[in-house]
Amino acid sequence: MQAQDSAEPYEGSELFKLRHTAAHVMAQAVLELFPGAKLGIGPPVVDGFYYDFDLGLDENGRPRTFAQADLERIEKRMRQIIAGKHPLRTKVVTADEARELFADQPYKLEIIDGLLRGEFNEYGDDVEDRQRAIDNLVISTYRHDTFEDLCKGPHVAHTGLIPVDAFQLMSTAAAYWRGDQSRPMLQRIYGTAWFSKKDLKRHLQLLEEAKKRDHRKLGRELELYIMDEEVGPGLPLWLPNGNILREELEKLAHEMEDAAGYQRVATPHIAKEELFRHSGHLDYYEESMYPPMEREDIRYYLKPMNCPFHHKIFASKPRSYRDLPLKLAEYGMIYRYEQSGELFGLMRVRAAQQNDAHIYCAEDQVEAEFTAVIDLYRHYFSLFGIDRYVMRLSLHERSQLGVKYADDEAAWLKAEAMARRVMKASGVPFVEARGEAAFYGPKIDVQAWSVIGREFSLATNQIDFVAPARFGLTFTNRDGQPEMPYCIHRAPLGAHERYIGFLIEHYGGNFPVWLAPEQVRVIPITDDHHDYARRVAARLSEAGVRVHADLGSDRMGAKIRAAQLMRVPYMAVVGGQEAAAETLAVRYRDGEQRNDTPLGEFVAHAQKRIRTRSGEL
Amino acid sequence: MQAQDSAEPYEGSELFKLRHTAAHVMAQAVLELFPGAKLGIGPPVVDGFYYDFDLGLDENGRPRTFAQADLERIEKRMRQIIAGKHPLRTKVVTADEARELFADQPYKLEIIDGLLRGEFNEYGDDVEDRQRAIDNLVISTYRHDTFEDLCKGPHVAHTGLIPVDAFQLMSTAAAYWRGDQSRPMLQRIYGTAWFSKKDLKRHLQLLEEAKKRDHRKLGRELELYIMDEEVGPGLPLWLPNGNILREELEKLAHEMEDAAGYQRVATPHIAKEELFRHSGHLDYYEESMYPPMEREDIRYYLKPMNCPFHHKIFASKPRSYRDLPLKLAEYGMIYRYEQSGELFGLMRVRAAQQNDAHIYCAEDQVEAEFTAVIDLYRHYFSLFGIDRYVMRLSLHERSQLGVKYADDEAAWLKAEAMARRVMKASGVPFVEARGEAAFYGPKIDVQAWSVIGREFSLATNQIDFVAPARFGLTFTNRDGQPEMPYCIHRAPLGAHERYIGFLIEHYGGNFPVWLAPEQVRVIPITDDHHDYARRVAARLSEAGVRVHADLGSDRMGAKIRAAQLMRVPYMAVVGGQEAAAETLAVRYRDGEQRNDTPLGEFVAHAQKRIRTRSGEL
Repeated sequence: MQAQDSAEPYEGSELFKLRHTAAHVMAQAVLELFPGAKLGIGPPVVDGFYYDFDLGLDENGRPRTFAQADLERIEKRMRQIIAGKHPLRTKVVTADEARELFADQPYKLEIIDGLLRGEFNEYGDDVEDRQRAIDNLVISTYRHDTFEDLCKGPHVAHTGLIPVDAFQLMSTAAAYWRGDQSRPMLQRIYGTAWFSKKDLKRHLQLLEEAKKRDHRKLGRELELYIMDEEVGPGLPLWLPNGNILREELEKLAHEMEDAAGYQRVATPHIAKEELFRHSGHLDYYEESMYPPMEREDIRYYLKPMNCPFHHKIFASKPRSYRDLPLKLAEYGMIYRYEQSGELFGLMRVRAAQQNDAHIYCAEDQVEAEFTAVIDLYRHYFSLFGIDRYVMRLSLHERSQLGVKYADDEAAWLKAEAMARRVMKASGVPFVEARGEAAFYGPKIDVQAWSVIGREFSLATNQIDFVAPARFGLTFTNRDGQPEMPYCIHRAPLGAHERYIGFLIEHYGGNFPVWLAPEQVRVIPITDDHHDYARRVAARLSEAGVRVHADLGSDRMGAKIRAAQLMRVPYMAVVGGQEAAAETLAVRYRDGEQRNDTPLGEFVAHAQKRIRTRSGEL
Repeated sequence: MQAQDSAEPYEGSELFKLRHTAAHVMAQAVLELFPGAKLGIGPPVVDGFYYDFDLGLDENGRPRTFAQADLERIEKRMRQIIAGKHPLRTKVVTADEARELFADQPYKLEIIDGLLRGEFNEYGDDVEDRQRAIDNLVISTYRHDTFEDLCKGPHVAHTGLIPVDAFQLMSTAAAYWRGDQSRPMLQRIYGTAWFSKKDLKRHLQLLEEAKKRDHRKLGRELELYIMDEEVGPGLPLWLPNGNILREELEKLAHEMEDAAGYQRVATPHIAKEELFRHSGHLDYYEESMYPPMEREDIRYYLKPMNCPFHHKIFASKPRSYRDLPLKLAEYGMIYRYEQSGELFGLMRVRAAQQNDAHIYCAEDQVEAEFTAVIDLYRHYFSLFGIDRYVMRLSLHERSQLGVKYADDEAAWLKAEAMARRVMKASGVPFVEARGEAAFYGPKIDVQAWSVIGREFSLATNQIDFVAPARFGLTFTNRDGQPEMPYCIHRAPLGAHERYIGFLIEHYGGNFPVWLAPEQVRVIPITDDHHDYARRVAARLSEAGVRVHADLGSDRMGAKIRAAQLMRVPYMAVVGGQEAAAETLAVRYRDGEQRNDTPLGEFVAHAQKRIRTRSGEL
């Protein structure tokens, strides 16, 4: 199955073309309104397009920026250009012709040089296989009306195909040229563009909804986690409510993994330099690691992955084919020094607890085990109501063998073929991506979309034929001979932090009962009903329900609002009538109300929702 | 209650005197047999005594050592000296007289100088309050027969009081003079001495038993944990079996803490330098911390304690007296750079998972909360059958206020008085130790003894009046005014690692059913009974019992021995008769056997033992 089958636009799709043309139209408008502006790059992106401009310096020597009024002027001029229905025409040019055309556009000239050296593409992105880029080099431009851009396309046929009521300029941002902090700071304008006014409206609504569901906002409001300046960036502190989410996810993983024959282990968070040299992390992954701690001439590193520790456990005793598959699981902490600018709430952190496991198995077990892992992913997706996802099978790049990838092409091809067969047989949506593999084998990343369409990279899964060799792992096969196992790395719930960030936004804070930090709040109508409220809370608590009786001095209305703000699934309101009849007036989070519910019946109802991890109230 | 009430000898007790005299007798024998030997120190210790000697260098320039045959000659000569019934006589001497007496004993001369400067005591141990040491200085010697030692006593009246059949020289070891690696390496002889032959025999038996129960030996045999050279010293990797012990302890703590109203949190393992400056750890505790990791001009440290993170969580929102006591619990990892020489299996590690919690409360709640904590400790002791323990209440040392301790004497006295009142009222055995407190408040350490008498320091507990001030923690009191809470630090199960190390030795690997990594092993009599064995295992597994069916190719006898070696509490042997009648032949770990046990009955029995955390089989 190809990515086209997902609802997302892909490079070259009609929507991408539309947005790409919109970017060109915007650039024309800016050049007209800001004569002398220098052009950076302007690609279509997932929800729209952008273009980067250098407007020169202001009187204080700082980069000149766009004001809100400028965006309105630019948008107005764009409508006029669109109305002109200018056709887009492409032509192939020589390097000299290109240099002539863009003689007063220094950033374009830099891109032309980069193209010629095979160093980067038309969007200024680094190229991996330079020789191939040089061999296949074609320099082209696209022109409409008075505007011509260095561009490989594709575009729509004429500007009139951009619906004037379906695009909008959204925001501006500063962006360093080629993402390099030592280069000039350019001014980026983001725009969005759709096929119809209705699509645009829906997109704007989703953006509004996404803002409300922002996990950083909900994380604060629902008291899930905090960040602290003195603790450091990317290092969340889990508050009691958020910690319940962690524990529930971990419990879920334990249950699933127990049933599937995993064994849990626990390994240190630091190790000596030798271990990470041995594993290859210091050769291939050091830039993502925290710096070392050195004492008594020994350098210790925080672990960026759990794998080498699990390999050590595999190697701690002789293994036989009868012991395989051996599945070692750990909800293990890993530490990655993400760039400061890339940190983002729970989504991109520097210390993450990974739902990790390593499955050691013989070659003839790889496909069955890999299939079981894919099924586990699907089970979780189904449980959380995630119905839009696509897996990306990342493959090695031949020219990088021995550089970025272990130098054993036959092993790569075999492992990749196994992964591909499993994914095809499983029928999961997937795409292939060359040159994105882990250094030790093919990797599967999962992109998923929340109910409101926010995209997240959730989990990875790898077939490793390198580490077992590096660590000298063997088992005695049926013939009594030592044989090297394969190792499947898997983390279907990914990192706690990111998965919870995703779930917060996916549910908008309205967690299913089993996940909800507080499942029931008991609200007495007046002080006279505190005793019964306490009894109800005690009964629920005994039944394993997370309950809190609000015996504060606020009035009932205020208490109900407070419970609603915390997204408590059930509010049990109790007064004299309820106390007399041992019942509850239950208000559900979705607004439904059921009076006179017998206490025992409600306890059983809540227990059932929790036990079955139901999505219903 | 004083330490004398415990079964351990204390400084000045008859047993300590006996051992101290035995050390002198041994020193005399060594001086006679090794003329020119130089004397280090020779104190009585918990199970006996030792003395350090410098025997000069051998022909290769290395320190001369004692051989096993030497110990026998020394022991023989000791018996003769004992038989002489030489009285021990003490006298007070001036510094010059002492120097004269020990003119050819350089280490004794060094001690005399140290005594005069108030720097260390007769045993060469550092002294904290030098002025007091100088003010109270008395130099004395003890003499018997031809031997005279710089010594403050006390001793028994004459050497004949050492029972000749109740002492024994045990071993030799190298020991640096004054524990300093840059000073000469001396030769230590360890001896043991008791009141009677019976006591000695019992002691030797316990040593033998202790060797069998050594947690490092059992840790390997029962596949509980490994250490790995490449990972680093003091950093255990928990194997699946050991991890079950961890998880069961954690589950126990969660249950107890849930019932007591604790809320769990989870906090990062690293933080910026600023946090540990703020908390005081870098001022008072840096030598126990791992060195920093520095990147982008920020220094990160591994946390040596969880406290500052919990304080941050307390401070994350306004708190009212209605929220107190607020109890934040975390099975949190802490990292302490213990000296290489002090690392010891699971007992002294560099990364430990602590059963930590911090109770924030108002002053009038401290005693009740502290009492509840003491009760929790006692609950755990009772559950694990630990009936010998003593708590040590560590107090500040006035002269160290502002140096080692927060400079607020009134606060110290108040907090210490609260702790003392609670401990007296609780009736727990305790002693007081001046100058051993934490920098932020009085501390309670718990010493416990396993069933075979091995001593362990298990857990600490502190009343903190410093950190809340440092972190500006306040709550709104009943009068609407900001008030500073107290903070009780507690960790009744201490560190996982050490507690499990203790339990391994306490139980000698025969864990109670609820803790046992494998609770039942199903053993088919022949291959014909594999099906029924599988069904039995499935039934038990569904019932929440950790079970393994041994379907390997070994014969039944070998399978039973294998299960016994792994200390599996129940072996369920199944053959044709059992399959036909749906019964089991159950062999208990203690040797008992019950044939024809109906499967359902056994499942219920195992479940009950697990649910009640019973110590019985």
